[in-house]
Amino acid sequence: MDNDEIDRILEKNIPKSMRQRGRTTVDSLMSPIRDVLNRRRFPEKGLTDLQLEMMFQLLSSLDTDKDPEAARVGEREARIASPFIGRLSAGFNHGVGRSGKLAAPQPKAPGASLMQQVANSVALDAIRKLGLSNMKSGIVTPLSTGMSIALILSALRREQGINRVLFPRVDHASPHRAIAFAGLEKIVIPTLIEGDAVRVDLEQLKQQIESTESSAVLATTTFFPPRESDPVKDIAKSCAKHDVPLIINNAYGVQSDRIMSEIRSAADAGYVTAVVQSSDKNFLAPVGASIIVSPSEDFVEQITETYAGRASAAPIVQTLAALLAIGLENYRALQLEQSENLKILNERMNEIADKIGQRLLSVWNPVACALTMDGLDANEVGAKLYNMRVTGPRAVAKGEFGSSCDNYPHSYLVMNAAIGASKNDVETATMKLNKEVRR
Amino acid sequence: MDNDEIDRILEKNIPKSMRQRGRTTVDSLMSPIRDVLNRRRFPEKGLTDLQLEMMFQLLSSLDTDKDPEAARVGEREARIASPFIGRLSAGFNHGVGRSGKLAAPQPKAPGASLMQQVANSVALDAIRKLGLSNMKSGIVTPLSTGMSIALILSALRREQGINRVLFPRVDHASPHRAIAFAGLEKIVIPTLIEGDAVRVDLEQLKQQIESTESSAVLATTTFFPPRESDPVKDIAKSCAKHDVPLIINNAYGVQSDRIMSEIRSAADAGYVTAVVQSSDKNFLAPVGASIIVSPSEDFVEQITETYAGRASAAPIVQTLAALLAIGLENYRALQLEQSENLKILNERMNEIADKIGQRLLSVWNPVACALTMDGLDANEVGAKLYNMRVTGPRAVAKGEFGSSCDNYPHSYLVMNAAIGASKNDVETATMKLNKEVRR
Amino acid sequence: MDNDEIDRILEKNIPKSMRQRGRTTVDSLMSPIRDVLNRRRFPEKGLTDLQLEMMFQLLSSLDTDKDPEAARVGEREARIASPFIGRLSAGFNHGVGRSGKLAAPQPKAPGASLMQQVANSVALDAIRKLGLSNMKSGIVTPLSTGMSIALILSALRREQGINRVLFPRVDHASPHRAIAFAGLEKIVIPTLIEGDAVRVDLEQLKQQIESTESSAVLATTTFFPPRESDPVKDIAKSCAKHDVPLIINNAYGVQSDRIMSEIRSAADAGYVTAVVQSSDKNFLAPVGASIIVSPSEDFVEQITETYAGRASAAPIVQTLAALLAIGLENYRALQLEQSENLKILNERMNEIADKIGQRLLSVWNPVACALTMDGLDANEVGAKLYNMRVTGPRAVAKGEFGSSCDNYPHSYLVMNAAIGASKNDVETATMKLNKEVRR
Amino acid sequence: MDNDEIDRILEKNIPKSMRQRGRTTVDSLMSPIRDVLNRRRFPEKGLTDLQLEMMFQLLSSLDTDKDPEAARVGEREARIASPFIGRLSAGFNHGVGRSGKLAAPQPKAPGASLMQQVANSVALDAIRKLGLSNMKSGIVTPLSTGMSIALILSALRREQGINRVLFPRVDHASPHRAIAFAGLEKIVIPTLIEGDAVRVDLEQLKQQIESTESSAVLATTTFFPPRESDPVKDIAKSCAKHDVPLIINNAYGVQSDRIMSEIRSAADAGYVTAVVQSSDKNFLAPVGASIIVSPSEDFVEQITETYAGRASAAPIVQTLAALLAIGLENYRALQLEQSENLKILNERMNEIADKIGQRLLSVWNPVACALTMDGLDANEVGAKLYNMRVTGPRAVAKGEFGSSCDNYPHSYLVMNAAIGASKNDVETATMKLNKEVRR
Repeated sequence: MDNDEIDRILEKNIPKSMRQRGRTTVDSLMSPIRDVLNRRRFPEKGLTDLQLEMMFQLLSSLDTDKDPEAARVGEREARIASPFIGRLSAGFNHGVGRSGKLAAPQPKAPGASLMQQVANSVALDAIRKLGLSNMKSGIVTPLSTGMSIALILSALRREQGINRVLFPRVDHASPHRAIAFAGLEKIVIPTLIEGDAVRVDLEQLKQQIESTESSAVLATTTFFPPRESDPVKDIAKSCAKHDVPLIINNAYGVQSDRIMSEIRSAADAGYVTAVVQSSDKNFLAPVGASIIVSPSEDFVEQITETYAGRASAAPIVQTLAALLAIGLENYRALQLEQSENLKILNERMNEIADKIGQRLLSVWNPVACALTMDGLDANEVGAKLYNMRVTGPRAVAKGEFGSSCDNYPHSYLVMNAAIGASKNDVETATMKLNKEVRR
Repeated sequence: MDNDEIDRILEKNIPKSMRQRGRTTVDSLMSPIRDVLNRRRFPEKGLTDLQLEMMFQLLSSLDTDKDPEAARVGEREARIASPFIGRLSAGFNHGVGRSGKLAAPQPKAPGASLMQQVANSVALDAIRKLGLSNMKSGIVTPLSTGMSIALILSALRREQGINRVLFPRVDHASPHRAIAFAGLEKIVIPTLIEGDAVRVDLEQLKQQIESTESSAVLATTTFFPPRESDPVKDIAKSCAKHDVPLIINNAYGVQSDRIMSEIRSAADAGYVTAVVQSSDKNFLAPVGASIIVSPSEDFVEQITETYAGRASAAPIVQTLAALLAIGLENYRALQLEQSENLKILNERMNEIADKIGQRLLSVWNPVACALTMDGLDANEVGAKLYNMRVTGPRAVAKGEFGSSCDNYPHSYLVMNAAIGASKNDVETATMKLNKEVRR
Repeated sequence: MDNDEIDRILEKNIPKSMRQRGRTTVDSLMSPIRDVLNRRRFPEKGLTDLQLEMMFQLLSSLDTDKDPEAARVGEREARIASPFIGRLSAGFNHGVGRSGKLAAPQPKAPGASLMQQVANSVALDAIRKLGLSNMKSGIVTPLSTGMSIALILSALRREQGINRVLFPRVDHASPHRAIAFAGLEKIVIPTLIEGDAVRVDLEQLKQQIESTESSAVLATTTFFPPRESDPVKDIAKSCAKHDVPLIINNAYGVQSDRIMSEIRSAADAGYVTAVVQSSDKNFLAPVGASIIVSPSEDFVEQITETYAGRASAAPIVQTLAALLAIGLENYRALQLEQSENLKILNERMNEIADKIGQRLLSVWNPVACALTMDGLDANEVGAKLYNMRVTGPRAVAKGEFGSSCDNYPHSYLVMNAAIGASKNDVETATMKLNKEVRR
Repeated sequence: MDNDEIDRILEKNIPKSMRQRGRTTVDSLMSPIRDVLNRRRFPEKGLTDLQLEMMFQLLSSLDTDKDPEAARVGEREARIASPFIGRLSAGFNHGVGRSGKLAAPQPKAPGASLMQQVANSVALDAIRKLGLSNMKSGIVTPLSTGMSIALILSALRREQGINRVLFPRVDHASPHRAIAFAGLEKIVIPTLIEGDAVRVDLEQLKQQIESTESSAVLATTTFFPPRESDPVKDIAKSCAKHDVPLIINNAYGVQSDRIMSEIRSAADAGYVTAVVQSSDKNFLAPVGASIIVSPSEDFVEQITETYAGRASAAPIVQTLAALLAIGLENYRALQLEQSENLKILNERMNEIADKIGQRLLSVWNPVACALTMDGLDANEVGAKLYNMRVTGPRAVAKGEFGSSCDNYPHSYLVMNAAIGASKNDVETATMKLNKEVRR
């Protein structure tokens, strides 16, 4: 309802000054919603839950399944088995996308279509404002990072004839599955142990970039220590030289200014095809969506044409809601908190190391910190921490899969102080670790 | 809380008979929830919204992000940006699956893991009770039918070396995209026009099954007229003979006893690898999930290992909720209503046909009915119906893409009376069509 | 937001026909909400839950506690301890009323003030349409019928110097408490046993009306058999003659056309000051509100000035929501169902009576039916039914309080088929009664 | 469900350590809920919204309207017009109380009955822990403070024959209405102007206590300056001496340690019958409930027997939820914040006073601060502040009603820094006031 109408309705019995006050309130409340829908930017200040609720209700009310007068004679009409189920979908029962194009407006769902466009714009703007200002297009996919990588690879095959992936070794199942899903050949580039750090063998990678036909590179910025970020700028330059597409798996790198700055430099100095980031790990959304950005609008368009069919609106809604709930100011505050927590984590882990004759691995990582467990049963410590209600530590025994290299000389335990963690998380976890290892 | 505990709490001030009455109520209310969790069957009677809400709340309360004492030091800890976002996910913030295995229990999310297992079992049981009693395993995927087909094809390539798909022509973008996504070669099998019906050229398909190495067949049971269902029993026999996997795209076929019976016969008489069905079109869930069933437990296992990474829990939750909200008894009632509505649709369309000198296409279809529009501008009629708030009709002008054959001799308009549609939908849509074409 | 604005926002990327479709949907969805706010009538058709939710959200968004820019420096500012609590109040945290006047607009709460006015108008219109077309003013009170009667009595004392209440005997605690609360003297008018029925001694009542100074009458239309409705027309005439206010406690009489017609005649033929009805028993709202109507606008005004302080908005919101959810058409259908269920109840109870040598009391009642229990232990039967999960029967042993007379010659058991009960309720209850009494 | 059952359900497919982890989480989550239900104390730490939601769902699930097998044949069966309405009541559709006794268990509603008992106990415990440790019994009424006073007065009349109220003058409509509602005679005790402060004429009050038969005293602790709190200890002693009941209207005094301490002393040294406090102004609940406490269990019992009929459960639920959401620790923090904000308010107002040649009234008040507006148009300033979105200031022009005395020599403007206000509220409000008065 527009303001004049609200005014007319109030006019009947509510005194004039109260009426104006009511309008002022509703205007002020709606103003950030209007802004989001009109400007489609990552807002400076986050929206409140009430505002989010009103915005999604308005949007889902545009979909035809809400039309009380509609006669619905399709085989898919967003019918739902009970009201509870309509609440589970926030009213976006038609999902998103149109058969064969993920971002196409769907005639039965003008509201969901608009919501998705807003999500794509807001997410791109967030990524740009948080460091990747040279990205030109973006999309929120209803898929986690692994499947999003598969989507990109499949688009590269169709559009550019790519059928091999040069993959600097990371001991993580998802990217392997992604390459296999899309049916490309995987060429794993080995790593080198340099001091404590495990890094890609850059020379060998460059050589392969030069020599492997129809290949793309899948580089990684965030993984557990001792694996360090791939040197994306060097790789991008090499890719540019040999016209090889580069996909950057930036799973939880948005929170790190340093990583974002490296990726921006890479895209400035060389060739970056697409960057994939998790919406849950960076933006505190529930698991299930990714944000893909690219310096090329065309390439994002091609990605959207790769997805087969329609998709659940839920991951898109959840990601948009999380982005809007946070806003830039608060994201900066969360980043600050994250680096402070990481400092504390390092200190506490160092103290423990000193007491038990171990040490911290000397490896750069934006959120994590690793303690050697030489001579200890790392897996047992990990299991005990789980039972002590510490979630997230990663224990790797010497020789086990996980170090992204052969023959890593240490057992170790990794803990994170990622965005959204509280100081209390860090203090409690290290306190319990301390108890456990000194028992 | 257990009953003794409730009793003790009530005991303090509530008279004994009231106490017992309270227990009886809560027991009776919880009983269907216990049944679902213990037996994991498609229930005879649907659950109420209150019961669904309580069940999902109980399940999501098992996930570690609900633990007030947890110290969370991973990079993914199901943190959420605001309470509203936690409501959007029904509390399943950790998503489902474990890196590289869609159905694996996730240590941080015992509740979501259990929920997913229950969803898989209930969905399989529903499909079995609704006709495919010879299916042995099933999974609810957080992907619509197109992407689920891609998932299956990718598993077939990895496990059985399949790299070609024999695809009886259907003019629908999703399956084409699915084959391309997974990187398989597509061999389209042409159709024949037989009377009004468009059917696969079965002889040519059989020949290809015999002669094409490393191939699988992707058959379709439900599409718009004039395209009829593929003869899955014949195809399955031929596939069995030549050891060729057969995937059946049964998008919205669950509602049709005849189609379900044909698929069951196919699996009895020949070789059926997997059957894919939409959860929204068959079970009134929001768009975004599919149910894959198979006579082979191993094959479903292989599918789950194909998905790269974790996924949104939302499509799974929505599908499970829809299945439980309906229940078998009510599903049977909905099927009955559907066939009655289809009869009415046929009658109304026939009346219109008579009045304007057209006729209904003589084609078997479980939910749809097609009226020739020869000499009329089918697309204009379609557009006008859209503006008149009739959603779902499909208008195809002679010669346009959509008839699943070359040179179909008619323009036509398709309307559906699918499961969940009301008599009022059918009456209103045909009344508006009548107005439009007789103008 | 107004439609032009929605249009502009959609314009950016959504095709024109979809845009128009979106507007059409949202217009159609909002249309009943506009109607309610503009016309303030009991609607013909009920609103959907989505519409109710949107309407209350819009209204509560007008209250100043929603203003993001407000500086709140009062001692009452509708602050809430957590978001959950805001959901419990549907956002109406400021309550209703203004110190010393229940219906006065509250400057901090334009939305709640409007909501309350709409509730009063819709409730009055409902009562008028359902029979009392001669009522001129109405108010929804956040009090159940007993306290509403106290409110009316207190207003009568203040405005008209009334300090005695002539109360035709009804064995119900609430009206007694109401008279006592307001501090008036109660003069109970005895009843007579006429056949099976217990009726007020009309002659004695008339005499008292004539002779008692500063008195008002509190008559009752709905109570358990054997007590029959008071003859309100006769009483109203007598009251008019002697200028004595008449309050009618019409607790659950709205559902009965006969009772409503008698009250209308009473107000036409004589003097009716106010009629009180329960919102839960007549309109399927949660317990806690009443609707007071009167042929006199002034008297309703006086009632609102009697309430001390502000009040919870919840009972008002719940009543308005229930009225709007039902609507006139559906209310008529519910009334029809009620009379059919009452017929069934009578039949079943009659059958039971025959089998066990008892009989139904010959008493008119709009919803209830009473079976003699002579020689049986009525209280035991009542207790057993409670344990058998039959709620609502009323068992009165001969001589006990409850028959609204001294020395009623029967024990009996009352069951109701009130509005909102299902046929299944009636069938199950009588089946269990049958089991119990024939054991 | 009990833990063993959860374990059994999980056992089927979830690994053992995950199972234990799930149990640990759900146990830890439920533990504060168990505590509340078992111990019924104001908790040290507040409950989360998830915990509150689960607790109320559990409780409302005990009511018979949730029983799927119940046969409901009463005239009141908590039927609701739509699911939305059930959400509005948090499931407590039967309300609270039993005809003629507000706190009696209601056989159809074991859950609501228990909820109400818990609310009464938790509220009493909160009031005890926050200062009134000598109170023995308490009740949460579904009425605001004014009506709660009426309830108490009515009980005093019935039980102790009181029919006059000695009321130290406060210029507030509610208490006047309350006395009138219950039908008692009001004897206003005049005030004296002492310095800037307006205080009851204690000598005259004492004299009246001594001389007025059948009277009770209604004293007030919190009101706007210049009216100061009544000296409740002196009054209580005098009441004790002459056996006169004393009701203390402690509307928003819970937040003030000083006031609570005075009331405790009063009850120790003399005679305090009941103390009434607002749940919204002290505990951040929506408007609509009060907490009455008393040193006498019998008297609270009598109060519950004064209320006529049943009542909405909503105000009770909202109050209980607010109490539990806060908890003692956080309440202490809020109190601290309140006193700091009051200091800031005083400073800012003082600065403004200096600049414009006015001064702060020298009056003790726990939350408020008053600035003289001599020679200015106080009402205009008040109206402008309202339009500038400052809510809560109270402007009184010299000679107007509001100062609780005749001929108060100043115009003035009052602002509050009450519990729950933020520093930003205070800063913004005074900044806007500054702008306005210096214009």
